[in-house]
Amino acid sequence: MAITMYDLAGADANRRFSPFCWRSRMALAHKGLEVETVPWRFTEKDKLPAPNDGRVPVIVDGGMVVHDSSAIADYLEERYPGRPSLFPGEAARGLSKFVQNWTETVLQGGLVRLVVLDIWNHVGPDDREYFRGSREARFGASLEAVVKDRAARLPAFRASLDPLRRTVERQQFLCGAAPAYADYTVFGAFQWARAISDFELLTADDPVFAWRGRMLDLHGGLARKAPGYGG
Amino acid sequence: MAITMYDLAGADANRRFSPFCWRSRMALAHKGLEVETVPWRFTEKDKLPAPNDGRVPVIVDGGMVVHDSSAIADYLEERYPGRPSLFPGEAARGLSKFVQNWTETVLQGGLVRLVVLDIWNHVGPDDREYFRGSREARFGASLEAVVKDRAARLPAFRASLDPLRRTVERQQFLCGAAPAYADYTVFGAFQWARAISDFELLTADDPVFAWRGRMLDLHGGLARKAPGYGG
Repeated sequence: MAITMYDLAGADANRRFSPFCWRSRMALAHKGLEVETVPWRFTEKDKLPAPNDGRVPVIVDGGMVVHDSSAIADYLEERYPGRPSLFPGEAARGLSKFVQNWTETVLQGGLVRLVVLDIWNHVGPDDREYFRGSREARFGASLEAVVKDRAARLPAFRASLDPLRRTVERQQFLCGAAPAYADYTVFGAFQWARAISDFELLTADDPVFAWRGRMLDLHGGLARKAPGYGG
Repeated sequence: MAITMYDLAGADANRRFSPFCWRSRMALAHKGLEVETVPWRFTEKDKLPAPNDGRVPVIVDGGMVVHDSSAIADYLEERYPGRPSLFPGEAARGLSKFVQNWTETVLQGGLVRLVVLDIWNHVGPDDREYFRGSREARFGASLEAVVKDRAARLPAFRASLDPLRRTVERQQFLCGAAPAYADYTVFGAFQWARAISDFELLTADDPVFAWRGRMLDLHGGLARKAPGYGG
């Protein structure tokens, strides 16, 4: 039986734009597991299976409900040990946490200030008020004000990617010759932006652009086929 | 026979302050290999065994000369496979590169702007002119000007450590329950600063401070016993 995954969707139910859901989606594909996704919106808290914390991803595997992308990765690794590993080797899980923390502070923190208005433009009609209100409270500014000078901030954002850039310039994936969970963690952020924004984050000659292309091609082009902007 | 390691030293020959040499020193200890260090100064290019690129670390292991800290780590891992691994598992080497690139851009890039004048105050007499000249050319400013507002820049430096902080807050080492090469890479930068500067980089309640303490205690307190400032 396929695993069910509740996945953040926009006004267009096929547009999936949660960085955390993309981590899990790619992890499921990495494990070669069949999945059926259920589009979910921010304001549909009552539609999630219990237990949950009011957010996605949530997966249901047989009778088991697992929520939170990190918990899902750990669950899949333990439940399906015979399939390709998300954390190949003793040190990989520890080091993947560093990559995750970099992603959630530097990368996602930088990205959201570039594309948050684009997100609002794509969320479902019932989510628009919630999304604007919660994000404007967080930033202490209107969404329009947050992104107003984004072109001017783009060089600093691109510079902040240097640790990633220097790595994927010299090896195919963050995890080396083959991708693993740390790659999906970083990629989730780019796929989030790609789903809802045509703002050009990367130049075509950027090694990060090439790495993102390799990620888009994985698992039969799973991420490339998903509705979004850009190549 | 012990491995010989050429190690950057200050006016005090026991004061060792190269972040790259500290990576190799800790890696040798991790492997449980005996080492004799040779103090070396920037201007002693002709004293290094060939081949070299005019910098340290350089190690001599029997008839083998290896230079560059990354090459040394790879050499030790290949030459001494039966000893504790520096890269435990397939993905660890790839992910360690990301940590290295973060260290060399964010961490060392931030640190040098806080302590470069302190370095100059500790280099050997014959190195002072070379060090000041090369660094002032790099920064386009006097060493005094580079560090002048360092107290004001300290909060931003500390904030830049967030990916590290969040990781070692929840696990003992970057690599998980036990340290490996990625830990030594990051630690080398802190040990570099500790060797030559009394400028307080971290508050005592910072999880990074606690992690640094664990690193200082490794391998019989190797790094803690080395001449430097602070606890």
